Amino acid sequence: MNYELYYWPGIQGRGEFVRLALEQGGAEYRDIALLPEEQGGGVPALLKFLEGPDVARPPFAPPFLKAGRRLIGQTANILLFLGPRLGLAPRDADGRLWTHQLQLTLADFVLEIHDTHHPIAGGLYYEQQKAEAKRRSRAFLAQRLPKFLGYFECVIERAGGKWLAGRQLSYADLSMAQVVAGLRYAFPLASKKALRSCPRLRALHDAVFARPRIRRYVASGRRLAFNNEDIFRHYAELDD
Amino acid sequence: MNYELYYWPGIQGRGEFVRLALEQGGAEYRDIALLPEEQGGGVPALLKFLEGPDVARPPFAPPFLKAGRRLIGQTANILLFLGPRLGLAPRDADGRLWTHQLQLTLADFVLEIHDTHHPIAGGLYYEQQKAEAKRRSRAFLAQRLPKFLGYFECVIERAGGKWLAGRQLSYADLSMAQVVAGLRYAFPLASKKALRSCPRLRALHDAVFARPRIRRYVASGRRLAFNNEDIFRHYAELDD
Repeated sequence: MNYELYYWPGIQGRGEFVRLALEQGGAEYRDIALLPEEQGGGVPALLKFLEGPDVARPPFAPPFLKAGRRLIGQTANILLFLGPRLGLAPRDADGRLWTHQLQLTLADFVLEIHDTHHPIAGGLYYEQQKAEAKRRSRAFLAQRLPKFLGYFECVIERAGGKWLAGRQLSYADLSMAQVVAGLRYAFPLASKKALRSCPRLRALHDAVFARPRIRRYVASGRRLAFNNEDIFRHYAELDD
Repeated sequence: MNYELYYWPGIQGRGEFVRLALEQGGAEYRDIALLPEEQGGGVPALLKFLEGPDVARPPFAPPFLKAGRRLIGQTANILLFLGPRLGLAPRDADGRLWTHQLQLTLADFVLEIHDTHHPIAGGLYYEQQKAEAKRRSRAFLAQRLPKFLGYFECVIERAGGKWLAGRQLSYADLSMAQVVAGLRYAFPLASKKALRSCPRLRALHDAVFARPRIRRYVASGRRLAFNNEDIFRHYAELDD
């Protein structure tokens, strides 16, 4: 199967959770919006599906995936679809449901991380909500960050190995490693402190980014760098 | 199958999306935390699974569902599991994925509705974030509310009937009706205005709450009333 991924150019964003699965799964895929516009890429390629009047099942927002005739939106839903096809989900139905449950909890976590710098509106600049971002970040770092990290640490411990959803690497592990990396970019001080009590999460992050296919992907230059237009943003004033 | 639903007592919350599916599906279920503590109910029944050291696959938060030996968390994941079992999802795999995608988009919408009154932290009172709530609500009502409603209105239109995911009622329709009802409680003025251009959504709401099983559920007194401890809250100062 040839896949087509559609996501905003210039940022990792939620598209990166899908890319990591496609890369680790050895899938053939094209990252459509990263192609030049004259080759059918760029933002217009996204808008065709978001705003086109003939799309029977339109996605609400990127990322979305074309897989044959299927058009699939919502990051966790894309991974639910891809997981078994790429060997990145348990074989049993209960294990798949559990892996998806973890992915949805990661999605909640990611949104709370995003909202630390955009607590008022995604349509406003950070500079227009700095004071609110400071308050929200303080609450996030004090309560939510340790709660989420402690939860996932506990999940790995109870799974009895080094991964979240069982003895095999799953797409949820790839997303978890990406979240750890993003937190270290956004909140280097606070995340270092919070991760001190999470040896399993630190090891999971290292194990994912040591995988040969993920290493090759990172080395290829195709993985965009974290930056302050993205979900994970570093504002020193929020990190204490 | 006998189901056990676990959700915070006193509010509809995210538990209500699961309840509406169980009711419409004619399922036998017990709403465990609504039982008295001496019968194994109340908040301690929830904490046993949230904090118990022996839970192999612990949920991060309510609602969660016990179905035999399975313990399933995350509202959309519970509905993904229940949908086919209760006759509330399409029969084909692509249709199920699409229904789930809509449910995840509804979950995003619900969280944005919640955050209008809690933009800084769930752990603080509304009164501690009133100014920020006013700013967030203004942006939500101006941009996000019409965007989400317009999206779902368009989805019904393209499906060619009166439901979201095809010609049959699905769990996503039940959730959509609940969101319309919640918006009318929380933002009576703004939602009336926004729903003027959404005749299909208004009709969907009415059709869901006219279903015999949903009517019986509402008439039973078991459906809690909307209230200001819940996701949908009415603060007149936010509704303009």
